[in-house]
Amino acid sequence: MPRVVDHAARRLEIVHALWAVIHARGLDSVSFRAVAEAGGVSIGRIQHYFPSKAALIREGCAQMVAAAEGKYREQAATAPPGSRLWALLSGSIPGTDAERLGAAVWYAYLAKSVSDPALAEIVLDAVRTSRSEAIQLLRAVRDELAATPDAALEEDALALLALGDGLTQRVLVGALDSAEAREVLARELTRQGVEGGSA
Amino acid sequence: MPRVVDHAARRLEIVHALWAVIHARGLDSVSFRAVAEAGGVSIGRIQHYFPSKAALIREGCAQMVAAAEGKYREQAATAPPGSRLWALLSGSIPGTDAERLGAAVWYAYLAKSVSDPALAEIVLDAVRTSRSEAIQLLRAVRDELAATPDAALEEDALALLALGDGLTQRVLVGALDSAEAREVLARELTRQGVEGGSA
Repeated sequence: MPRVVDHAARRLEIVHALWAVIHARGLDSVSFRAVAEAGGVSIGRIQHYFPSKAALIREGCAQMVAAAEGKYREQAATAPPGSRLWALLSGSIPGTDAERLGAAVWYAYLAKSVSDPALAEIVLDAVRTSRSEAIQLLRAVRDELAATPDAALEEDALALLALGDGLTQRVLVGALDSAEAREVLARELTRQGVEGGSA
Repeated sequence: MPRVVDHAARRLEIVHALWAVIHARGLDSVSFRAVAEAGGVSIGRIQHYFPSKAALIREGCAQMVAAAEGKYREQAATAPPGSRLWALLSGSIPGTDAERLGAAVWYAYLAKSVSDPALAEIVLDAVRTSRSEAIQLLRAVRDELAATPDAALEEDALALLALGDGLTQRVLVGALDSAEAREVLARELTRQGVEGGSA
């Protein structure tokens, strides 16, 4: 009987090793050899799953987005719109060491996306997806309160997302801790009449 | 008569070449050779001014901060507090190709600062300086309007700065253009009763 191999798990194991290399030495230091050493796997296995270094780096970026979306869906599953909006906006603020590593790797991808169209496409797609989600959620929350003109609502959603990203940046560089960042975000949501935020 | 050498200009010329290397190939690909080639100067000259690659990279980070502060001081020189606050908050939103390059390099430094204490110190210092400046300016603006409890004022200043950074990030990755980002920021300032913002 042939051995059952969980290919998705093996790909993910390689991606995790990639993130460790990016965190320790930066995106431009990535090589199959460095990832193999970090993950304790053979270069051959990496080559089996990824045709090129660029493909591996792209997969790492897509998996970051997928992990964030998975975490959001899990938190938001059966929650009311206000709580889902909170989960969406606060999701990127790192609270654990693993999340901090993730945020640092994401920043490396952001910096690189400026000169790498394939990464830019993944990043832009993620940014647009969370923007439409935030607009939808804010609309759902506000329908219970008052009619808001769509353009203003879209700008509010955008400002909330940008605030969340700016706070994440401050936590990343150590200028705020995650509790402080979540407080500022919760306060802004309360000011906008959104219930469900919890610092 | 000895030739007069403008050492500050030569150091800056090397730092500009460093930024070009960081933008094109990332922080971890920086070498004296790469910077020499990018700047059209000799490796020996770089070694004359910078004892190590790490010292050059740190100087590049410090010069980014100095350039941003210089630009802010120039814009804010004789302006009223509201306009100075606008200059402070909108200053990082890239409008030109050169500013976009600068923002991308800054993001590379942010990502790296997580694992590099010397860079973290420079970044943190810059973040704290702009935070106290924003608090002072917001206080000056609000004194003309109403007394605001200090803690709330400090949180408002922090939220405005974070919003500016989050908008900068969106312009950097191409999800917003700089006019849209400045509009969202101006709208938020107006909502907070600050005059002097101009999208």
